[in-house]
Amino acid sequence: MRITGTFLDEISHDIPHQNWGEAEWRKDFAAMKAIGIDTVIQIRCGHRRFITFPSKVLMEKHDCYLPPVDLTDLFLRLADEFDMKFFFGLYDSGYYWIHNKCQQELDISRAVADEVWQKYGHYKSFGGWYLCWEISRTYAGMVNLYHDLGMHLKDISNNLPTMISPCIAGIKCDPNNVATIEEHQRTWDNIMAGISGAVDIVAFQDGHCDYDELADYLILNKELADRHGLKSWTNCESIDRDMPWRFPPIKWEKMLLKLEAARKAQLDKAITFEFSHFISPNSMYPSAGHLYNRYKEYFGL
Amino acid sequence: MRITGTFLDEISHDIPHQNWGEAEWRKDFAAMKAIGIDTVIQIRCGHRRFITFPSKVLMEKHDCYLPPVDLTDLFLRLADEFDMKFFFGLYDSGYYWIHNKCQQELDISRAVADEVWQKYGHYKSFGGWYLCWEISRTYAGMVNLYHDLGMHLKDISNNLPTMISPCIAGIKCDPNNVATIEEHQRTWDNIMAGISGAVDIVAFQDGHCDYDELADYLILNKELADRHGLKSWTNCESIDRDMPWRFPPIKWEKMLLKLEAARKAQLDKAITFEFSHFISPNSMYPSAGHLYNRYKEYFGL
Amino acid sequence: MRITGTFLDEISHDIPHQNWGEAEWRKDFAAMKAIGIDTVIQIRCGHRRFITFPSKVLMEKHDCYLPPVDLTDLFLRLADEFDMKFFFGLYDSGYYWIHNKCQQELDISRAVADEVWQKYGHYKSFGGWYLCWEISRTYAGMVNLYHDLGMHLKDISNNLPTMISPCIAGIKCDPNNVATIEEHQRTWDNIMAGISGAVDIVAFQDGHCDYDELADYLILNKELADRHGLKSWTNCESIDRDMPWRFPPIKWEKMLLKLEAARKAQLDKAITFEFSHFISPNSMYPSAGHLYNRYKEYFGL
Repeated sequence: MRITGTFLDEISHDIPHQNWGEAEWRKDFAAMKAIGIDTVIQIRCGHRRFITFPSKVLMEKHDCYLPPVDLTDLFLRLADEFDMKFFFGLYDSGYYWIHNKCQQELDISRAVADEVWQKYGHYKSFGGWYLCWEISRTYAGMVNLYHDLGMHLKDISNNLPTMISPCIAGIKCDPNNVATIEEHQRTWDNIMAGISGAVDIVAFQDGHCDYDELADYLILNKELADRHGLKSWTNCESIDRDMPWRFPPIKWEKMLLKLEAARKAQLDKAITFEFSHFISPNSMYPSAGHLYNRYKEYFGL
Repeated sequence: MRITGTFLDEISHDIPHQNWGEAEWRKDFAAMKAIGIDTVIQIRCGHRRFITFPSKVLMEKHDCYLPPVDLTDLFLRLADEFDMKFFFGLYDSGYYWIHNKCQQELDISRAVADEVWQKYGHYKSFGGWYLCWEISRTYAGMVNLYHDLGMHLKDISNNLPTMISPCIAGIKCDPNNVATIEEHQRTWDNIMAGISGAVDIVAFQDGHCDYDELADYLILNKELADRHGLKSWTNCESIDRDMPWRFPPIKWEKMLLKLEAARKAQLDKAITFEFSHFISPNSMYPSAGHLYNRYKEYFGL
Repeated sequence: MRITGTFLDEISHDIPHQNWGEAEWRKDFAAMKAIGIDTVIQIRCGHRRFITFPSKVLMEKHDCYLPPVDLTDLFLRLADEFDMKFFFGLYDSGYYWIHNKCQQELDISRAVADEVWQKYGHYKSFGGWYLCWEISRTYAGMVNLYHDLGMHLKDISNNLPTMISPCIAGIKCDPNNVATIEEHQRTWDNIMAGISGAVDIVAFQDGHCDYDELADYLILNKELADRHGLKSWTNCESIDRDMPWRFPPIKWEKMLLKLEAARKAQLDKAITFEFSHFISPNSMYPSAGHLYNRYKEYFGL
């Protein structure tokens, strides 16, 4: 099971920024392409006041800062150049959806999506939408947010695919509030029923449970997704969640265990969070470059 | 608004040491010079038992360790070589001033200053003094410490300028004890009144409030400084205070927002904490080198 | 006092993995050799489910994962190639010995040792055993574990030397439970009496007390070791325990202070935890490479 997609962690809220310009990003897209990555997912177009593109909606109505460079445009140009699909991540207010105000989050995102589609919808690489809010359990209003926004996105973009990437409520998520696999099943059966038709792809983050529990979760996720007509991808995290600081690149052995679990569950596709800090030879962390080499060796690339 | 000064973070107490020798430091001074840095500020000459130069006062009376290299001398030679001004940072006991014993802190620093001026005062780059204790509010005895020490330093050194670099008590300083802008005004009006004539430059650290609050603080700081006859510099921090570990290099966009705020406030000069870890192409953090490139691009250097 | 041995931090539980393959490890052994390292100590052959070699005992009876590469074999081959002694670190269940079940820990380790000696005992570099559990005080059952396992290891391997590397219960160990030097003396007099004859080498970690306290501890450790017929090495840690994240490479000045204390105490040998992350020019931390250069300069290498 190979990784063929990656998030682009802009705007980050907990990963240090690498301060790359266009030349560095182009070099990194080439490194992605070299190991078979065909899909890039901008993780969000904004978080609180920082945004990836000069959005009128976000600057005029939500006090966001004018960014020094239009990263969304840059990513789309590079995706065109390297023949990849680009998923656009929506805006995370960092406020409304976690304060029971999902309607406001929806209103903002609808306006942003309209602006984005008009501005960037012509790029041939524009291939989907990413609904950026990450949940592990039922969360007041989130099913409606996913559903109504998903329908709107598909409506304006000729039915482009929509994706979410939730967490498994395992021991590395909130150790004081771990869901059993039965709870996980009930929760996600309900959520998927509610978003079916509006969200096409569910790519669970694979880093919050223990390595030996993962295959069971992934098999279950696939069953649930199949039942509700969704595609099941895995978000094979390349950050190491077992270390004392957040986050170094993962140990290759751990990534391999997780890819094996995904293979066993016969998932449709593996993406990762994320290439540029944690697998790339261009990363600020040299151990990411060594992970790149281990990955290439293993798959004979 | 460009950065024309930087701290030299020796002795550090919370930034990992880079283990540079003379060759690495020379290379880094050249990188500083290339972007227009004309002032280097040794952040302190000692903290607890570690010191930057073989001070008889500190080794004999305060049990400090003999350092393997005389960094103060090295910095002064390099500052001479690169035609920069060097500010000498005093000694921080890490004890007396935070235990209501400012008189002892003053006594040590006076003796250290006398030793330093005799030993290094002949360097043409010796251009000022840095009073290293960082406060955000009125602190018992600190106004006297700043005042009496400042007067002594100016007295022994033909009136060389003296500087402090306090914190703004914003949401990233102590979230449980945030000062309103009115409190900030009252506090610093009083403090500046008490140190006027003894301290010449106040360079507030700019990283403890939110980005959109900064211009208001800087404008106020400038008004207060003008009122009391002080110069107002900004310490435009190049560390990122929003990340889960202390500290990676800052995202260029954030630094730019802060420089814009300083420009708007018409401050006299911008310095940074600090170049060698957080902006330098020689830094242990590769994202610092990319920040250097973004900075150069922006200013056409 | 020069460093002539290093741990190999596989399997790590709190140090980020560098993702090296055979070529990178060979290069690093060459860098070790260049500064006079003649002894490498694999810190453990496993922790919980991750192991360094495909151990039937650990995979079949303790659910460990099959590792993608046999690191133990790789290290032994490299130790042969570079004419070094290799110490084999036992398995740390991460469970039994800290839950008052030292007998189970012993049973596992005996079986692992038998398997290991049969599999790898023929390597000429196989030069000793490392009992991997780190304690700072008397710990129920640990003396017996050290003793009985040590006797078994020596029995199966023609009396190869056995080593432990305990902590000093200083201010950087558990600040709420610091042992006085008198307590340290009583504790370790008892423990050494109990392990004498079964454990040959005690290499205390030198990073948990303050720099100015270290010589006293090391002199005492040497006296105790002499009394009980043990060799006293120092584990001169190359991690910096004074920084806000765990762990960057240490400042050269601090390492030098610790080596000076070891010289004063006339210890038999200095090893370090550990070369590859914290002193190596190949490390993911560039400041490790600079530490390597400072070390070489100081000793004229």
